[in-house]
Amino acid sequence: MEMQPGQMAYDRASTVFSPDGRLFQVEYALQAIQMGGTAVAVTYDTGIVFVAYRNLPVSSLAEASSIEKSFAIDSGLGCVTAGLIADSRVLVEFLRVEAQRHRIAYSESAPFAMLGHSLGTLLQQFTQFGGTRPFAVSLLLGGFTNGRPGLVELDPSGATIGWRAYAIGRNRRAVADYLEEKIGEHRDEAAAFELALQAVAEGSPSPFPPEALDVASLAPASERRRLTPADIAKRAQGMPFIGTPERKTSGR
Amino acid sequence: MEMQPGQMAYDRASTVFSPDGRLFQVEYALQAIQMGGTAVAVTYDTGIVFVAYRNLPVSSLAEASSIEKSFAIDSGLGCVTAGLIADSRVLVEFLRVEAQRHRIAYSESAPFAMLGHSLGTLLQQFTQFGGTRPFAVSLLLGGFTNGRPGLVELDPSGATIGWRAYAIGRNRRAVADYLEEKIGEHRDEAAAFELALQAVAEGSPSPFPPEALDVASLAPASERRRLTPADIAKRAQGMPFIGTPERKTSGR
Amino acid sequence: MEMQPGQMAYDRASTVFSPDGRLFQVEYALQAIQMGGTAVAVTYDTGIVFVAYRNLPVSSLAEASSIEKSFAIDSGLGCVTAGLIADSRVLVEFLRVEAQRHRIAYSESAPFAMLGHSLGTLLQQFTQFGGTRPFAVSLLLGGFTNGRPGLVELDPSGATIGWRAYAIGRNRRAVADYLEEKIGEHRDEAAAFELALQAVAEGSPSPFPPEALDVASLAPASERRRLTPADIAKRAQGMPFIGTPERKTSGR
Amino acid sequence: MEMQPGQMAYDRASTVFSPDGRLFQVEYALQAIQMGGTAVAVTYDTGIVFVAYRNLPVSSLAEASSIEKSFAIDSGLGCVTAGLIADSRVLVEFLRVEAQRHRIAYSESAPFAMLGHSLGTLLQQFTQFGGTRPFAVSLLLGGFTNGRPGLVELDPSGATIGWRAYAIGRNRRAVADYLEEKIGEHRDEAAAFELALQAVAEGSPSPFPPEALDVASLAPASERRRLTPADIAKRAQGMPFIGTPERKTSGR
Amino acid sequence: MEMQPGQMAYDRASTVFSPDGRLFQVEYALQAIQMGGTAVAVTYDTGIVFVAYRNLPVSSLAEASSIEKSFAIDSGLGCVTAGLIADSRVLVEFLRVEAQRHRIAYSESAPFAMLGHSLGTLLQQFTQFGGTRPFAVSLLLGGFTNGRPGLVELDPSGATIGWRAYAIGRNRRAVADYLEEKIGEHRDEAAAFELALQAVAEGSPSPFPPEALDVASLAPASERRRLTPADIAKRAQGMPFIGTPERKTSGR
Amino acid sequence: MEMQPGQMAYDRASTVFSPDGRLFQVEYALQAIQMGGTAVAVTYDTGIVFVAYRNLPVSSLAEASSIEKSFAIDSGLGCVTAGLIADSRVLVEFLRVEAQRHRIAYSESAPFAMLGHSLGTLLQQFTQFGGTRPFAVSLLLGGFTNGRPGLVELDPSGATIGWRAYAIGRNRRAVADYLEEKIGEHRDEAAAFELALQAVAEGSPSPFPPEALDVASLAPASERRRLTPADIAKRAQGMPFIGTPERKTSGR
Amino acid sequence: MEMQPGQMAYDRASTVFSPDGRLFQVEYALQAIQMGGTAVAVTYDTGIVFVAYRNLPVSSLAEASSIEKSFAIDSGLGCVTAGLIADSRVLVEFLRVEAQRHRIAYSESAPFAMLGHSLGTLLQQFTQFGGTRPFAVSLLLGGFTNGRPGLVELDPSGATIGWRAYAIGRNRRAVADYLEEKIGEHRDEAAAFELALQAVAEGSPSPFPPEALDVASLAPASERRRLTPADIAKRAQGMPFIGTPERKTSGR
Repeated sequence: MEMQPGQMAYDRASTVFSPDGRLFQVEYALQAIQMGGTAVAVTYDTGIVFVAYRNLPVSSLAEASSIEKSFAIDSGLGCVTAGLIADSRVLVEFLRVEAQRHRIAYSESAPFAMLGHSLGTLLQQFTQFGGTRPFAVSLLLGGFTNGRPGLVELDPSGATIGWRAYAIGRNRRAVADYLEEKIGEHRDEAAAFELALQAVAEGSPSPFPPEALDVASLAPASERRRLTPADIAKRAQGMPFIGTPERKTSGR
Repeated sequence: MEMQPGQMAYDRASTVFSPDGRLFQVEYALQAIQMGGTAVAVTYDTGIVFVAYRNLPVSSLAEASSIEKSFAIDSGLGCVTAGLIADSRVLVEFLRVEAQRHRIAYSESAPFAMLGHSLGTLLQQFTQFGGTRPFAVSLLLGGFTNGRPGLVELDPSGATIGWRAYAIGRNRRAVADYLEEKIGEHRDEAAAFELALQAVAEGSPSPFPPEALDVASLAPASERRRLTPADIAKRAQGMPFIGTPERKTSGR
Repeated sequence: MEMQPGQMAYDRASTVFSPDGRLFQVEYALQAIQMGGTAVAVTYDTGIVFVAYRNLPVSSLAEASSIEKSFAIDSGLGCVTAGLIADSRVLVEFLRVEAQRHRIAYSESAPFAMLGHSLGTLLQQFTQFGGTRPFAVSLLLGGFTNGRPGLVELDPSGATIGWRAYAIGRNRRAVADYLEEKIGEHRDEAAAFELALQAVAEGSPSPFPPEALDVASLAPASERRRLTPADIAKRAQGMPFIGTPERKTSGR
Repeated sequence: MEMQPGQMAYDRASTVFSPDGRLFQVEYALQAIQMGGTAVAVTYDTGIVFVAYRNLPVSSLAEASSIEKSFAIDSGLGCVTAGLIADSRVLVEFLRVEAQRHRIAYSESAPFAMLGHSLGTLLQQFTQFGGTRPFAVSLLLGGFTNGRPGLVELDPSGATIGWRAYAIGRNRRAVADYLEEKIGEHRDEAAAFELALQAVAEGSPSPFPPEALDVASLAPASERRRLTPADIAKRAQGMPFIGTPERKTSGR
Repeated sequence: MEMQPGQMAYDRASTVFSPDGRLFQVEYALQAIQMGGTAVAVTYDTGIVFVAYRNLPVSSLAEASSIEKSFAIDSGLGCVTAGLIADSRVLVEFLRVEAQRHRIAYSESAPFAMLGHSLGTLLQQFTQFGGTRPFAVSLLLGGFTNGRPGLVELDPSGATIGWRAYAIGRNRRAVADYLEEKIGEHRDEAAAFELALQAVAEGSPSPFPPEALDVASLAPASERRRLTPADIAKRAQGMPFIGTPERKTSGR
Repeated sequence: MEMQPGQMAYDRASTVFSPDGRLFQVEYALQAIQMGGTAVAVTYDTGIVFVAYRNLPVSSLAEASSIEKSFAIDSGLGCVTAGLIADSRVLVEFLRVEAQRHRIAYSESAPFAMLGHSLGTLLQQFTQFGGTRPFAVSLLLGGFTNGRPGLVELDPSGATIGWRAYAIGRNRRAVADYLEEKIGEHRDEAAAFELALQAVAEGSPSPFPPEALDVASLAPASERRRLTPADIAKRAQGMPFIGTPERKTSGR
Repeated sequence: MEMQPGQMAYDRASTVFSPDGRLFQVEYALQAIQMGGTAVAVTYDTGIVFVAYRNLPVSSLAEASSIEKSFAIDSGLGCVTAGLIADSRVLVEFLRVEAQRHRIAYSESAPFAMLGHSLGTLLQQFTQFGGTRPFAVSLLLGGFTNGRPGLVELDPSGATIGWRAYAIGRNRRAVADYLEEKIGEHRDEAAAFELALQAVAEGSPSPFPPEALDVASLAPASERRRLTPADIAKRAQGMPFIGTPERKTSGR
């Protein structure tokens, strides 16, 4: 991110606008998100596919499955995140509690758009009140309206936008362009998986092993289903980016 | 916004006046609003028309309808906003709660001017107490007094002004001049739609597809009615600014 | 306002005295008030006249009546303000609540001088405690003691002074000189109106339309009465400053 | 007030000692008091006289009596102040409430020295805790012990000193010297009035009209009695400093 | 106090250690105490003598007795202070309340050493928590253990040391040396008075009138007894430092 | 840690992102951890081994066992830490209370991954809210899922990663590489002990006495078992790094 | 303490890590402790000896016994401190209250190691939360486990280490080396006293009178016993460092 003259005078707190009306701390939080792995969500006829590249420690000692990028929120509700791991955990926990609160009050799943707005309001507060920093997380929240899948994207500013398919994290723009170019009018589950896998590969250093991906699918009124490395390997069969990366020295 | 010598000494907090009595953080918030899309509200004999240009992501993957610029507040009460999406959400939520509070206490719709004053008081507090920043939102709140439509404009300072028709957001001044020049003494609904659509086009990069507009109308004692892209296309038939923009690379 | 060497070291907070015992933030708030329109209050035998120049947006689309400068507080109590619109609203609301509190406790109108002291104490707190800024409002509060009219002026410091007639806002000093020169020992209502109108014209860019003025009168034990533009036009008949201003480009 | 090298490093908050143990903000508050009018209190055999020069606005439109410098606290308790008007109001209100609290608890007037200590403790807190500024007020509190009059002086530091007669505000030192030189062992009421009037004149720009003075007397177990301008004129008859000042342009 | 290079970087708050482990604000508070008058306490066989030089205003109008330096705390408990008058008042009030609390709980006088520790803990808090400054007071608290007199010294750091006789305030070190040199193994009351008076004279500008001294004595199980100027004159008969100081211009 | 230009502008608080999205205070806390001793945890078929190098004071007067690096949390739950001793104590206490809370609510041991997430959320708060610093601790928390051992690593950011074996503290990267190279598919307890001991030696200055190591093992549903120096000596028999270090001058 | 380049940027608050992970305010607090007197604790077969050098004011007027360095906490629990007197008082009071709390809850003496951990947690909080400074105290807390004596050292960071014998305060390192060199496997009380006295003398300016030492011994289940100067003189008989120091000018 290139600095402009005078920028440093306004970029220490999210409670200060720059003369041209920017909130630099929110923009810097977006930079933090760019450093994490790419994550993609793609809707199809009757469901949603979440695929995220895990910034795996190089070491084979790591339990890849412990690095979660996609999360179940409630029946028919799930999300994928990019950005700081610990910040994501806080937001996912918020979503889960809100979803349960709705379920208890109304005996139904929370509408995903309403959940997105609640989370957006939480995120907004961290851009307006002093003594804190914005959350460095982007998040694609998926759910269903009358069985029709939908996605809401949240970023550190608390803004929300709906998408049919979108990308967050590293190389977000290039991956989103790829998605837009390759997506057709309709997709079945297989096409969605293939598209999502290829899009993530587009934004990530390759080749990588199946364990480097956190892949999950969501169907109406059921729990998010996370794929095992074996499942992923099967889905990715023949895709050139799945392989064994060259060995580097350990480190994060 | 051109900086004056010494300005930087007084522009870090809304709790500091400059020697000439200005609150720079409030002015910078107005700058943030200028970066968003143009929004217009026009009253006519028996109703109000709200038209806003959505700063659509270029990508066709976006659900245009998810980017809301006009909002229902209560029966016979609605608004259109310009500025930060997440800030707008907070203010709209405030208006909705205040409106319900009034309805429960007095069994009637809240007078729109009274609602505007309540919101103005909220906005003012964010210009006088430390540890926060002003809201970067301008808002045109519409409602009815004995069936006669009216508009109240709110800006980050918390000031309120009434209008027959007005513009906020990008190119606000030019668009308002256009409105003033073209508006007649009386308008029916069709004329109000046409005027509002053309005014927004005046302030926006064109051509743009119908989905780029968030259009709604408000009538006394009924919910704000949002138009579908098809409705918008019909209303805008023959208007030269409706079309397909040139393709740019994705990004926001 | 001319800056003195070293002034910038002491002018960022109302909780800091300069070496010569000044509170610069309070003085800067007075500067903010000078940027608003002139307002005048003139007592006469049995009542008070309030006249204020509205800083009307040039646009004819504005509802002039929405820009209030004079306010009813309670029966036999009213005020006129100069300075930030949103700050004024907060103070007027405070006066109204205090007046009702007194009425409920003592079954009588609050004495206007007592109300003035309560408001002065509120204003003072914003000059002594950190984390806020002073209110950028001057205010002339009028009321009656045994049927005899009186005025109390309040400024951002919280100081109170009583006047028979006085001016606040733009060109306050020149307008007050004009008032002092032209005022006689006694005035009837007509003379008070004429004096007040001419004094405001003295401090304002002219010519201006009747709508540019917020004019009201107050009599004992009755609500403040606001004049319609037609009433104002009648009162101002023949006064040279009432007319149509030259058209400028829209803006505030 | 002459600045010493390094002074600016320690003079922004009352919670910071300079290396030589000074609290500059308290000293600056004393400077603010010097800018106000001179006030004097003189005890005599059976009572106390308070005389203060009002910094009257030049304009004849002002109600001189609205600028109070001497205040009744309770039966047999009164004071005169110099410094910021709004700060004085807060302290006088404190004294009145404390006096009533004592009266309710013990069914007697509060001893003036005890009241002075309570006020001193309030003032001290504003010199030790952050986020505020000291009060810019000096105050001479008068009362009686077994019918014998006494005075306590309070300044922004919260220190208290007892006096037989003393001066605060503009030219305090010269006026106090004058008092010391002219005061005899015993005075009756007439002598006390004459001494106090002449001392205030000593410290003030003259000539000035009787209205420029706030004059009051206090006797044991009775309310402070404020003199009317006519009374003052009678008392000051023949004193050369009472007259009509030259006309200057309005302003404060 | 001579400044060392770099000192200014660490001397603005009592919550910051300098690299060599000093708390400069506490040291600066000691400087403030040095500016006040000298105070001395001397124990003798069966009692304690307190003598303090009052920084009397030069003016003869002052009630010397109003400037208290020695204070009764409870039966058999008393103290003398040096430093800021208003700070002293707060500490004395604390001691009195603590003493009464102990008396109510245990039906006995509070042990003076225990009281001293309570006060020390209060003082310590003002050297460790932000947003305040240390108290600028040194204090010699006297009391009895089985009829044997004792003294505890408190300074702004909250440290406590016991003494048979000691000095605080101006020229503290020289006066303490004088005390150490002249004090014998045992003293009766007369010797203690003489020693204390001469020690204070040692640290003060002389000659001075008897009123310039605040002298008191404390005996077991009885109130501190304050001497009248006549008593002091008698005690000081023939001492060369008692006399009439040369007249200077008034001022503090 | 090499500093980049401009870094100092953003590295004073954990509530400030740098322009490239880094939280420097969190990174500096990691540096503090690097200064402590190496700690290693290795899972094997049915248990976990924890080995940590104690930064023993050179002095033989120290009770080596008082420097704890591995801690029992609950039955079947234990951890090893690297970083500031006092910070570690706070986190271990948190884990113990959370574990008991779970046990009381659900009558079972808390799942170690869930405990890790709770601790991660605590750590995250210290990276987002002002007025504090992050914890300077890394921690390997071990536990069992259906008898199968697992490890969760926590660092100052609050991120969590699962491992089969891992290293924290000094030379973390080199030691982790060593572990990865030497670890086989399966280990019994003896192999795990040997691997862990050799890995720690890899990262530590050697030779060192058995007392320099804090060694513990954890089995399902039983308390963490800490080895005595004699046990350690037996386990380490023949390992070249166990010995008597050269004598240096005392100090820490 | 030698300053490194850039150190000043990170050393104003305990809530800021330096780039190499240091907390300078904690290190500066250690410097403050080095300025106080040496203190030593030595365990022997059945007890503990505490010896501390008092930084006596030179003046013979001081009550040496009022400067406490060793403190009774509870039966079988005691400590010796080095550092700021007032800070020590706060920590000792904390230990006493904690010990009583344990006694009331469990009807037994608190284990000294557990007490040490509680105190360590208190100390840690003052290194992590803003608006305060660390405590400038090191402390050796002694107690018994099944009749076997033990010591825990606490420093400003809140870290705890166990010792058989150790030194804090001035020249801590040299004195600890001396202890290590001279201590045998087992000591009886006489040997422990001799060792402790000689170690303190090692770190202190000598010769000094017996009153300069605060000496106490602790046995299981009994109060800490403080030695009188006569006892100390007897114990130190023939030791060359006990004598009369040369007279210097008074001062602290």
